[in-house]
Parts: sequence; structure tokens; C-alpha cells
Amino acid sequence: MMKYTYGFLILLFSMHSFAEDGSKLWLRFQETNIPEVSIYSLNGNDNTLAIKEFQLAWKELYGSPLSVVSSLDNNALIIAKTGDKAIKEFSISKDLKAISPEGYIIKSINRNGHNYTVIAAQTDAGLLYGTYHLLRLIQTEKFNNTINIIENPSYKLRLLNHWDNLDRTVERGYAGYSIWEWDKLPQTVSSRYKEYARANASIGINGVVVNNVNAAPEILSEEYLEKVKVISNELRPYNIKVFLSINFASPSELGGLENSDPLNTEVQKWWSKKAKEIYKLIPDFGGFLVKANSEGLPGPMDYGRTHADGANMLADVLQPFEGIVMWRAFVYNPDKDDRAKQAYNEFMPLDGQFRENVIIQIKNGPVDFQPREPFSPLFGAMQKTTIMPELQITQEYLGFSNHLVFLSPMWEEFLQSDTFCKGEGSTIAKITDGTIYKQKITAIAGVANIGEDKNWNGHHFAQSNWYAFGRLAWDNSLSSNQIADEWIRMTFTNDVDFAQPIKDLMLSSYETAVNYMMPLGLHHIFAWDHHYGPEPWTNISNARPDWLPKYYHNAGTDGIGFDRTIKGSNAVSQYYSPLKEQFNDPQTCPDKYLLWFHHLPWDYEMKNGTTLWNNMCYSYDAGVQKVREYQKTWDKLEKYVDKERFMDVQSKLKIQSKDAVWWKDACLLYFQTFSKEPIPYDIERPIHELDDLMNIKLNLKHHN
Amino acid sequence: MMKYTYGFLILLFSMHSFAEDGSKLWLRFQETNIPEVSIYSLNGNDNTLAIKEFQLAWKELYGSPLSVVSSLDNNALIIAKTGDKAIKEFSISKDLKAISPEGYIIKSINRNGHNYTVIAAQTDAGLLYGTYHLLRLIQTEKFNNTINIIENPSYKLRLLNHWDNLDRTVERGYAGYSIWEWDKLPQTVSSRYKEYARANASIGINGVVVNNVNAAPEILSEEYLEKVKVISNELRPYNIKVFLSINFASPSELGGLENSDPLNTEVQKWWSKKAKEIYKLIPDFGGFLVKANSEGLPGPMDYGRTHADGANMLADVLQPFEGIVMWRAFVYNPDKDDRAKQAYNEFMPLDGQFRENVIIQIKNGPVDFQPREPFSPLFGAMQKTTIMPELQITQEYLGFSNHLVFLSPMWEEFLQSDTFCKGEGSTIAKITDGTIYKQKITAIAGVANIGEDKNWNGHHFAQSNWYAFGRLAWDNSLSSNQIADEWIRMTFTNDVDFAQPIKDLMLSSYETAVNYMMPLGLHHIFAWDHHYGPEPWTNISNARPDWLPKYYHNAGTDGIGFDRTIKGSNAVSQYYSPLKEQFNDPQTCPDKYLLWFHHLPWDYEMKNGTTLWNNMCYSYDAGVQKVREYQKTWDKLEKYVDKERFMDVQSKLKIQSKDAVWWKDACLLYFQTFSKEPIPYDIERPIHELDDLMNIKLNLKHHN
Repeated sequence: MMKYTYGFLILLFSMHSFAEDGSKLWLRFQETNIPEVSIYSLNGNDNTLAIKEFQLAWKELYGSPLSVVSSLDNNALIIAKTGDKAIKEFSISKDLKAISPEGYIIKSINRNGHNYTVIAAQTDAGLLYGTYHLLRLIQTEKFNNTINIIENPSYKLRLLNHWDNLDRTVERGYAGYSIWEWDKLPQTVSSRYKEYARANASIGINGVVVNNVNAAPEILSEEYLEKVKVISNELRPYNIKVFLSINFASPSELGGLENSDPLNTEVQKWWSKKAKEIYKLIPDFGGFLVKANSEGLPGPMDYGRTHADGANMLADVLQPFEGIVMWRAFVYNPDKDDRAKQAYNEFMPLDGQFRENVIIQIKNGPVDFQPREPFSPLFGAMQKTTIMPELQITQEYLGFSNHLVFLSPMWEEFLQSDTFCKGEGSTIAKITDGTIYKQKITAIAGVANIGEDKNWNGHHFAQSNWYAFGRLAWDNSLSSNQIADEWIRMTFTNDVDFAQPIKDLMLSSYETAVNYMMPLGLHHIFAWDHHYGPEPWTNISNARPDWLPKYYHNAGTDGIGFDRTIKGSNAVSQYYSPLKEQFNDPQTCPDKYLLWFHHLPWDYEMKNGTTLWNNMCYSYDAGVQKVREYQKTWDKLEKYVDKERFMDVQSKLKIQSKDAVWWKDACLLYFQTFSKEPIPYDIERPIHELDDLMNIKLNLKHHN
Repeated sequence: MMKYTYGFLILLFSMHSFAEDGSKLWLRFQETNIPEVSIYSLNGNDNTLAIKEFQLAWKELYGSPLSVVSSLDNNALIIAKTGDKAIKEFSISKDLKAISPEGYIIKSINRNGHNYTVIAAQTDAGLLYGTYHLLRLIQTEKFNNTINIIENPSYKLRLLNHWDNLDRTVERGYAGYSIWEWDKLPQTVSSRYKEYARANASIGINGVVVNNVNAAPEILSEEYLEKVKVISNELRPYNIKVFLSINFASPSELGGLENSDPLNTEVQKWWSKKAKEIYKLIPDFGGFLVKANSEGLPGPMDYGRTHADGANMLADVLQPFEGIVMWRAFVYNPDKDDRAKQAYNEFMPLDGQFRENVIIQIKNGPVDFQPREPFSPLFGAMQKTTIMPELQITQEYLGFSNHLVFLSPMWEEFLQSDTFCKGEGSTIAKITDGTIYKQKITAIAGVANIGEDKNWNGHHFAQSNWYAFGRLAWDNSLSSNQIADEWIRMTFTNDVDFAQPIKDLMLSSYETAVNYMMPLGLHHIFAWDHHYGPEPWTNISNARPDWLPKYYHNAGTDGIGFDRTIKGSNAVSQYYSPLKEQFNDPQTCPDKYLLWFHHLPWDYEMKNGTTLWNNMCYSYDAGVQKVREYQKTWDKLEKYVDKERFMDVQSKLKIQSKDAVWWKDACLLYFQTFSKEPIPYDIERPIHELDDLMNIKLNLKHHN
């Protein structure tokens, strides 16, 4: 353990006397030495949220209160915002001006042989974030007296999207029912709302869309707005704004109007009145998230209007209150072009037509949160429109809450993807965070993986994805390595004998899952409806063809993959040079996207000299073997983990291990019916019969 | 392929035009060169069974008839028995005298530059066996002109015991219903009876107990005896005698007598009359097999008589017809001593009291056909009584017809076990085959694995166990290596690229199964009733304690195993020195019997320096890994095998692979609750939860 120069050391024992249910997330006591510090209240004011929060956190984390003192002792923590005396006292006014409203400074100061640590910010929010940063430094044993940190968030809006329904089911939720107790609200206020708010604040999340994008009109009823108001009140102290997903047909569905045509003045008036009603209840209400004309939901096109007509009408209504409209670009139609091209085709003609307070929310990939997709070409292409990424934290396509998959590497890969829209270096991070385009609003959203499970996320390691999303939303240049390191140390232990192997495990886990599920650019070959497990064979009569795996893998005796080259669907042309040329040629297309962009024969020779079929087999097997390795890694580390979490994770890894073999066997045995090639003899053989696997019908819903 | 000096070569094509269902067993066409030979009928008599059989076999095996010629051409085959002119002609009268009635001579003779092959025997039976031997030489490419073979069978009676019920279910049968169509007999005579007889004749089986030892009295009814007569008529040409299992209570149950007391003269008369009735129908009827006072069945002890009283009464009845009584020593009682000791305790006091035509049939091990047992101490101990081994061909405890387990190594281990009853070298083979004791009758029985499945045995490789039993019954000094080699070449191909890896697989498969099921002397930890899969935890209230796994494994926090040392049940004392001392000391007790004879702490240090617990873990894992290796081996050899059998075996290996993991996880996770030790971290981790495994209740019967 690291040794502190601060004061004397306190070592606490009997640390795991409580039943470890994972509910504390990363905000937990560490088996570490705690610096002896006190809070110095230079203003004689210990009532700021940050100070209170620090004290609360301290007490929760370390079991004993942190005292507020009035003399500037050694090791004092000074928490001060613009205007406070301390800012002048410690000469940090200039530094403060360089940060954004939510930013903060943490600085070690040595004066007269005494060490102080100053957290400074322009706002209470900044102080709050700075406070959690300092706690993180302590938790991860990085607290010392040479700190000099200046932090500004990458995005102004760092949002969770809850796909929570009003009946408390959660679409694509795998951690129990919704944390929002709609039936008990507004009378009963769960203590979880505040815990949830603190967890979010600790990683910088500052906005929450509380309901599903497949929105029930009722969310805008007076009854429900009263409930939302209560949630909003609980979250506000933690600098979190509430947003709502709205149903575009609300005026007719809820309001009883004849239609919901955005150019109908009655409709406009209805929305205007509704906005006033909302803001009266929730003065800092964030705005609307809209899924329109997508997967059967209503939208402006029902009336011959455009996405812009619809989004702008709502934007105008919210503009007086500084509310915004997040309009989703997730649209596709079975009768049209290659699904991967459609969002681009539908939205590009509208580029430049949206209001300033409209932001187009685009999923990271052009299809739908697949284990691996190239980035959506709308990133970089839409240059006259404010855009934001939508990531999926909940593991809809990545093993639900059964599989350990650390998603940060996927998001890092996405954020660091170079679109080349303004030449080399035009990464998605830079075109969405204001670096390249000076948009007024910058934002990023993640579809939450939170439910009422004690451990919030179903799988203890799924907490790391909530954590990683928040951290990347705050700083999109962070490495997955750093994020994993922080999370492991805070959530489990700073002991490197645990932290290092678990970090290795986490950092490889995404690639592992891709390998045993959909390697080499394969996509959308999962089970119908609930999306758990492999079903590359699924064929449901009358189903939308673009909801069937065959549409995507195109396996036949001639080969496998989706031809999106210029000779195929020409999706490559939606990318900038040199990407379009690179993707267009299988020799230069990265292997990880190979079958996304190409239909290739089974004996196609890959860069490593083996055939496509053999490569596919080796990829699936590598995934399986790696999960087995994870099981060994985890079991070996039993002594570092409390029994409850050890057993829970061990149990989940067993499922993952079985599922990996299921995926491998299903995909290889099915595709083998086309390839007619043997599975290379040096890898483990299938243990399933294809027929048996094809008969598996899991009794799962796509919501819990 | 081997080249013959005989005549010119015929290479046949289009060999696998039929759908390969495995029905031909080892009696099949080989992709080999066929020697051009003809049969020379020196006697002008081509009607002996051997000649007919040779012609039939030839035609079936090679597709074209073998002609009988009357001039002594080059390459002629001469089939002759005592008294035939050829015996004198080729000067083999002296050789013939040295063989037993069923023995034979095969000899290459070169005369006047011509090569001949003579098969000579004293009886038609000998000629038949010689004929199949010669065919085997051809099938396995060992036929040449330097043959000089003299063969005599190790046992006079080489018997299959069918545990077939009259309703056509088969107790412990895993290859479909019984081949005996009782309901259609005697009118309808299945062609399978003859096929079955030929298969048995080809490996030397000469007796068949057609019904279950848990015998229905009805088998002795006039109605059923008429049916048995028909079966007997079908088998007789192939030198196979029919035997019946009888219910000891038949006089009362079937005959309506007051009791079935063996000393009751009415009972004796009833049996005497019944014997006459049987022999009138079946003049060469072999005799009775009796399970008495065992597992609830009636017997002489019901009337205060002894096993000897019962057996001798029946023996006296059969004696005039040269019939015999096989009396089973499989007895045990929950209220008495260690089950492993009871057969010895019950039968040793009777040694010397049995008639000459009584033979005590003893299972190989002292408990019940477990994957591995030391030999029953009755072998070697009963010196004044004729005894015979009972082996189990059907895989009651070895994966039914799902697992590939070549049993020959188990039987070889048993037959070559040294009892030390007459000093070193008193192997079970030698004390049962007449070498050491000059008993009038020598016999060996195997519980059949035959059913009406197309391939006879459920698993194509289970055919090898039928084959191996027959071969060992004929020659108990044969090595498993040779038996496997013959069987593979006859059943699949002579190609060494196939034969060698498959032989390696077969020869290791028994040890592999022991490893993943019950290593280190563990026994009787299988599922209740049906015996498929692991259930070391089984606890059924009111169940006989000696039918529960706990009775045998005794796992607790203090260790595991059955203490049968002199400080325990003292079962070791039933063995001769130096075995008893060797078994009594864990340091000298072979590891394979360790937990059979010892209860040892989990951290007991094994000969290899690792702990008992770790050893157990490594054994289970080795079993699992080995089955995975078999899958690879099999898949690699696809091109050498017809598609049907390839797929069938591939599919069975998948089940075996899954089951091996099931066994490993179940036993290790369950025993771990006592050992409290981690599974060594270098082996694959469990993928199951113990609770889930404990809840598995397979819907299986112990008969099909």
C-alpha cells in the first residue's frame, strides 16, 4: 500500500462485516490507508453541497466523520468557489477563469511548511465534481501533496437514457424492474433516487431521460409530471437535470386533438401549453428526447412533414425555457436501401435545417448497437447540425447481465475513430465535443443498465460500464486502461495482485465477446426478439427481412458477409476518403469490419494467410478459451474479494463460459452447412447438435 | 495395402453404396485386396456348416461367391475335420489330437509348388471357429502362406447373459428393446436370430442365457418353452446352446405348489418334470442361471436352506441331461457387514458343498460392476467349488450407449489380476480356465449389450465390447491391444492412419471414463435407480443405506473413502498375502484402489507429492480433457469413415464430452463442500452450479 506523507495512518479492520451486495458501487471503503485530513472552512460556511457531500462521502466511505475546522491546520482541505475568500487567499482566481462552469481545480499548496489541498470551481456543481475527484484520488491511493489538476468536461450534457416503461419494466433491462417507482410516486420517495443521483454525480452524469424512447403519451399527463417533479427534486442537488422521452402523437393521443401534425397550430399550442406546465413544475427541466418515425412509432412524416419540421416545432416550444430537443437518427425501413445506409440517407438532406436547440442523437454504429460496428457515417457528414452520440450501456447484444464485458474499449474505439471529415485527426470525439465544430450544445448519451437489483446493474462488473460511460462523457480522451484501473481500485481493492489481472481481463473482455459472438464484422445474428444467444438461422415468415439474420450475414455456399462495397450496397461511399477506399477493398479493410463490408468466399485468404472459414473458427474458439481463462483468473483471486461478490461473479462467468460455447457451436455448425469445410482440427470440437440449438426457444422478454 | 502372393488381385469399388447403419458389425467388407482362393472339396462334400458358412460369409463380405472346386488348384482352401480324407492327406492327424473339441488348426501347406491353406478340427464347431479365424486373417490383411495356428478356447462355456424381460424391455439395456420377439414367437422367426448367432459364432460365443436373471416364472411355462425352442433351433447350427434364468419360486409361482423349498420332494419332482419337458423340446439345452436370495428375489434361504441346498437340487435334476446350474454369488444385505465382504462371507462356508455341475457365477468385483473395482476375493478363495466370472458388457455404470468406453482393458486388468491363492502367478484367468484347478466345467459370462437397434449395441463402438468379450472368452490371454486392432480393422479399415489413433483412443478410453466418473477407487456415486450421471449427494429417505452413495464415499470434512483396512471393515483380510498387506497400507495400495480401501484426509499426500484433493481434481479434469481429445481425433478421421457412422459417433462423443464435464463439476463441487479446498487453479473451472446439478432428475428407466 502507498504511504502518505499526511499525518498518521489509520488502518481500519472488520471491513466486510456487512453483507456485500454490491449496492455501494465504486463509492466504497477501500482496504487502504486513509489520510488524516480536515475540512477548513475559510468562509465559516460549511453548508455548501460540496462540503456536505464530502463529509457524507467520507463518513460513508471511511466510517468516521470528517471534521470542519476553523483554523488552517496542516493537511486541511479547502473547498472554495468563485467569490469565496480562499480563492484570493491562495491566488487561484486566474486559474478559475480558465475553466468551464462545471470544471474544477484541485491543487496542492505548501505554505509555511503546511500542506493544503484546494478544490476550486466556479459553481457548486464544479465543487461537487472536484470533491468526487479528490475522493477518487484517495480511494485509488493517488492522493499526495503534489496535485495540480484542472478539469473541464468534454460534453456539456452527459446523459443517461433510461428505457424504462411506466409499468416499471425496462426495455433491454437486465437488472430488475425500473428504479422509478411510478406507482408509489409522488407520495413515496425511494431513498434510491438520492443514491442514484450521488453515483451519477460522482462520475459527472448531469442529465437523465427517465423514460423509454418508445414513449407512452401518459408521461406528459399531469399525474405523471407530478411524479417526474419529485424525481427531479431528488436529482437537482446533484446537478442532474431531468429530461423526458415524448411520444410524438401526444397531442392526439393524450390531448385529444385531431392529429399531431407539427405544422398544425393547435398541435403547436398544445405543446406550448404542455411546456409551460412542465417548467412550472420543473424549472430546470432539460428537454425532450424523441424517437419518431422509427420502428412503428409516430412522427412528423405521418403528416408528410420532415424530421426537421417535427424537431423544430418542439425546439421552438422549449426555446424560451432553454430546453432542448434530442431527435434520434435511428430510422430504417425494410422497403428501402441497405439498412446501414438509411439514417444517413434520411438525415443528410436535412443538414442545416434544424434549430440550434435541436441535437440529432446518433447511435455509434449505422445499424443497432451490435457487438462491433464501424461508426455511423453521419458522424462527420452532418456538419451543419448539432449531433451527439448515443451509446448503449445495457448489454442488449452483449450477454445481458450474464456476461462480463467491459464496454469502454468499444466506446474508446468509437470515439477515437477518425472520420477524416476535416482531414486526418477528425475523430468522433473531436467532432462531437466542440473541438472541431463550435456547436452551442455538446452532448453524449448512454442507454442505462440500471435497475432495482441490489447491485444496480445485475452483474457486478456491469457497474464498470456505467462508470466508464460517465468517465468518458466527462473526458472523452480517457483510456480504457485508466478507467478500468480506477474502477477496480475503487470497487474492489488497490492491491495490484488483484487489480492487474482483473484489468487485463476487463480490457480484453470486449474483444473476447466479439470473438465468441460475431467476429470479423458479422452482425445481427442473435436470437429473435429478446436478442440473447445465437440464431443465425432465424427465419420467421412475414417478419421484416431487415430484422432477420440472413439479411446481414448472407451466408451461402459462395461465402458470407454483406457486400457494402461500391459493387454492392455502396455503403462505403457514405464515408470520407481514405476510409471509403480502405473499407471498399477487402485487402485494406480492417479484419474486424471485413464481413460488414464484404461478401467473401469461404476460402478467401486472409491477411494472416489462413482462409476466412478457418479464421472464423479460430476467432470463435479464441473467445471460448478466453472466457475459460477468465474463470481461472477470477477463481485465483478469491482471497481478494468478499464472498458474496466472488460467488456472484463466479456464477456469472460459468454462464458466460457455457454461452460462449453455445455461440461458437451454433455459428460454426450453422455456417458450416454452407462452407462445407471442417472446423480446423486443432481447436476444440462442438459439443452441441445444430438441430438441438435451433430448437432452443428461451422464455425471455426483451424487457424484464 | 498388403499385397498377396495369391493369384491376381481384385479391387472392388462402390463399396459403400448401402446406407451404413452398423448392422454388419465386424463382419463386413473391407477396402482391401481379396485373395483369389477357392474351396477344394476333397470329400466331394460341400455341405458341412463350415463350408457353407465360409461361402456365405465370403459372399456377404466380398460380394461374390466362393466356388467349390474338385481339383486341387493352387490357393485352395481345404476345410476338413477328423475322419475326412484331407486330414490324412496333409498329415495333420497328430496335430488334431492335441486340440480340444472346439479347437482348430489353420496351416499353410506348400506342396509341389502349390500353396494350400488347411482348416482342420475335430468337430463342425471347430471348423466353424477356424473358418471365422481365417476370414479374420483376410479381413485384417494377415492372410499369407506361412500360417501355422493352433487354437483352443480358454473356457468351455462362453456365455452371453441377456437381462431381457418377457415384455421385451431390457434391464440395463441401452440399444432398444430385446431382440427376442416373445410376442411373435414361436410363429414368427426374426431373421435377426440367425444374424445374432453368426456374430456370436464369429467370436466364439457358444451359449446364451436368453432372459433376465431377475426372472419371471413364466419363462418355464409351456407357452414360453415353445418360443425358447424356436430360438434354440436358430442358434444351434452356430454351436450355441440356450440357457434360461429361472425364478427359484417357480414351483409355487408357476406350478401352484405350496412352496418352493428345495428339500420338499414335491418341489424336486416339479423341477424334474420341468427338466424333462425342456429337454424334450431342446435336447441340447444348457441349463439354468439362478439369482437367488439376492435383491429381494426368492431362494432356498426363504426356507432355511442354503445356497448349496438350492443349487444342488437343481443340479441333480439337470444332471441326467448334462445340464448345469450357474448360481450367482451376487448377494448382499443392508443389515450386515460391509457390502463388499458379503458374497465372500456367505459363500465361503459352502465351499466344497456344491455338485460338480454347479458353477458359482461371480461378478468381477465385490460390489457391482463399478467403473473400477478390485477383483472379488471369492476368486482364489473358493478352491473346492467350480467358479466362473461374470462381466458386464452393457455399460450400466459407464455411460450407457452414449460413452465410448472400450471395456477390454478393464477385463484384461481383471483376468490378469494375481490372486496369489497358489502363490505368485495365480491370476484369475488361470484359476478360472482350468490351468490351476482342473475343474470339469470352465465358463465365463458377459451381460449382453445387445438390443434391436440397427447397430445392435446403441453405440457403434459398443460393438467392440461384444467383440472383446467373445475374444477374451475364447482366449483369456489376448491383449486389449490385439483385440482393438482386430476389431478396428474389421469394423472400419486396415488403414493404419485410422487404425492407430483409434486404437490409442480405445485403449485409453476406459481409464478416461474412470477418471471423469470415479477416479482413485471411488465407486457407487452414480444417480439413483437409472445409474446415469453423477449423484454423490443422493439421499432418499427409507432407501437401503447400501444403495446410497454416501455409504461408499463417506465424504466428510475429515476426508473421503471407505475404510476397508483391518482397522475398518477389514475387507482386506479376504485377500491373500501379499495383497491384503498391500491393500491395507495406503502407501502401497495402488492409487486406483486407494479410496476403495481407505478413508483418507483431503490433504493426504499421494505418491506423486500432491494432495488427495488435488489429485482427485486433476483426475476428473484429465478425463474431461481426454474426451475433448477424442473428439478431435474422431473429427480428423472423417475421411476414413462412412458418413452415417461418422456422424453417429461424432454425436455420441459430444454427449460424452458434456457428460464428462457434468461428472467432473458435480463430483468436485459436491466433494468441495467437505474438502473446503480450491480446485487447483491450473485446471478448467466448473461451468455448473452444484444446486442446479443436484436438481437434475433425468427421466430414465433402468430398462429401455
